[in-house]
Amino acid sequence: MELLDGKKISNQIKEEIAAEVAKMKERGEKVPHLAAIIVGNDGASLTYVGSKVKACERIGFESTLVRMPSTTSEQELLKKIRELNNDDDIDGFIVQLPLPEQIDTQEVLMAVHPDKDVDGFHPMNFGKMALDMSTFIPATPFGILELLERYGVETQGKHTVVIGRSHIVGRPMSILMGRKGFPGNSTVTLTHSRTKNISQITTQADIIISALGVPGFLKAEMVKDDVVIIDVGITRVPDESRERGYYITGDVDFENVSKKASYITPVPGGVGPMTIAMLLKNTLLARERHKKQN
Amino acid sequence: MELLDGKKISNQIKEEIAAEVAKMKERGEKVPHLAAIIVGNDGASLTYVGSKVKACERIGFESTLVRMPSTTSEQELLKKIRELNNDDDIDGFIVQLPLPEQIDTQEVLMAVHPDKDVDGFHPMNFGKMALDMSTFIPATPFGILELLERYGVETQGKHTVVIGRSHIVGRPMSILMGRKGFPGNSTVTLTHSRTKNISQITTQADIIISALGVPGFLKAEMVKDDVVIIDVGITRVPDESRERGYYITGDVDFENVSKKASYITPVPGGVGPMTIAMLLKNTLLARERHKKQN
Repeated sequence: MELLDGKKISNQIKEEIAAEVAKMKERGEKVPHLAAIIVGNDGASLTYVGSKVKACERIGFESTLVRMPSTTSEQELLKKIRELNNDDDIDGFIVQLPLPEQIDTQEVLMAVHPDKDVDGFHPMNFGKMALDMSTFIPATPFGILELLERYGVETQGKHTVVIGRSHIVGRPMSILMGRKGFPGNSTVTLTHSRTKNISQITTQADIIISALGVPGFLKAEMVKDDVVIIDVGITRVPDESRERGYYITGDVDFENVSKKASYITPVPGGVGPMTIAMLLKNTLLARERHKKQN
Repeated sequence: MELLDGKKISNQIKEEIAAEVAKMKERGEKVPHLAAIIVGNDGASLTYVGSKVKACERIGFESTLVRMPSTTSEQELLKKIRELNNDDDIDGFIVQLPLPEQIDTQEVLMAVHPDKDVDGFHPMNFGKMALDMSTFIPATPFGILELLERYGVETQGKHTVVIGRSHIVGRPMSILMGRKGFPGNSTVTLTHSRTKNISQITTQADIIISALGVPGFLKAEMVKDDVVIIDVGITRVPDESRERGYYITGDVDFENVSKKASYITPVPGGVGPMTIAMLLKNTLLARERHKKQN
């Protein structure tokens, strides 16, 4: 069994991007600039967005954090988005989810200009991805592809089973693993809440990508020997014995499944750290495209 | 075994649309207007596009056929597309494929305004489909959904296997069958040229949608009893004994597979006739949306 070490790989990627940024500075070029909008004071959201901004600073990107009160109206948020769309200094930006109830998330995601949509959530970018065109791939799926690629995990002709059909992970992952090229060319089965006999399907899988959010869902008897396991589930389980008051766990019964797996991602330290690295990579990509347009 | 009779259902749909158009006329409203651009003189393409125009006339739509010579440049075609985008009288239009070699098909499909893209090929519309938003669904997949719905074929919790990952049929079909709602909520496996042991997968399927274009590919021993078969393969096989010089056949060994199937589409007369009906339905939808915008 080999660990797919997202922490290590994400650090490598960040170093690569930092080296790229250093060269840009040497050449006197503008460096990538990522903005993030956060509405309200949700603790977890503030932590996530804070990590993204900090990561920008560490690798030499410019970053802007736009904080708006939890009472912000949809119109006010859309106005801010239009400002960022039109701000030539900003290469890409994200709107941290979830948004307060009074705001229609879909309207907001549709308002972000596709060329600045480094989260890859805009239908235009999602459609390009599904049609094999060059685009921004959402950060978590992009991170999984990168892990598979850097560890040289064979995907062609393999049977990949994706658990969960969310717009952010399951659906895009099921599309990406079946595309031509590497990583890809898998036979892909997408399973979800309406799937019957899921064990019958997972026991046939060469690669399992679980994005369900149910701690310990995938057990050893549900997988075959030498399976590759990508655990995207990140659940906070309350635990008073810890300083934070919770611990993080995935969808996979790691202790037992890891004994049968050829490769497996730990939680934490697997897919999670890759997500920020790929957001930075998308921002670098946005800068390069933006530059070509000017 | 029951035939999924696309000819019958497509006629029903056309009658429903014709009744709708008659009401529009009674109310003194503008009727839907579909335009089709065809470049060059390919016989099959002219036949297809001719059928579409004729179908428009029969149900009371306005239609415009734009014929351009095979020497048309990409710039000339893009100019024509911009004209149609800006022509307020036209609700939707299609560009008949394939296009001559000097023209980049992707550039052309991207130039069609998403609101007039009744073929559903624009990445914006494809992305909306994949993200469960309201949009134009490509005609062939839309026709398959309609057949399943009108015959009341249960799809929820069933295992649907899609053969072929084309942008026009296999990929969208694999997405649509796994969406929430009916028809949908299937566990979906997408197979393609790199899939190993395809028989092992198809023998587990409750529903098989084959869009491969290989005559007689799917044989009786590859399916289980009571399977539902949707045959999207349409291949012209040369046959001098026929007046046309060819006959049309599907991917499925109909004679033997039909003995095991609960439902099956014939070829011809199954999915084929549905395609034009759903193009008309998309045009009606485009008219309704267009009206709301004005």
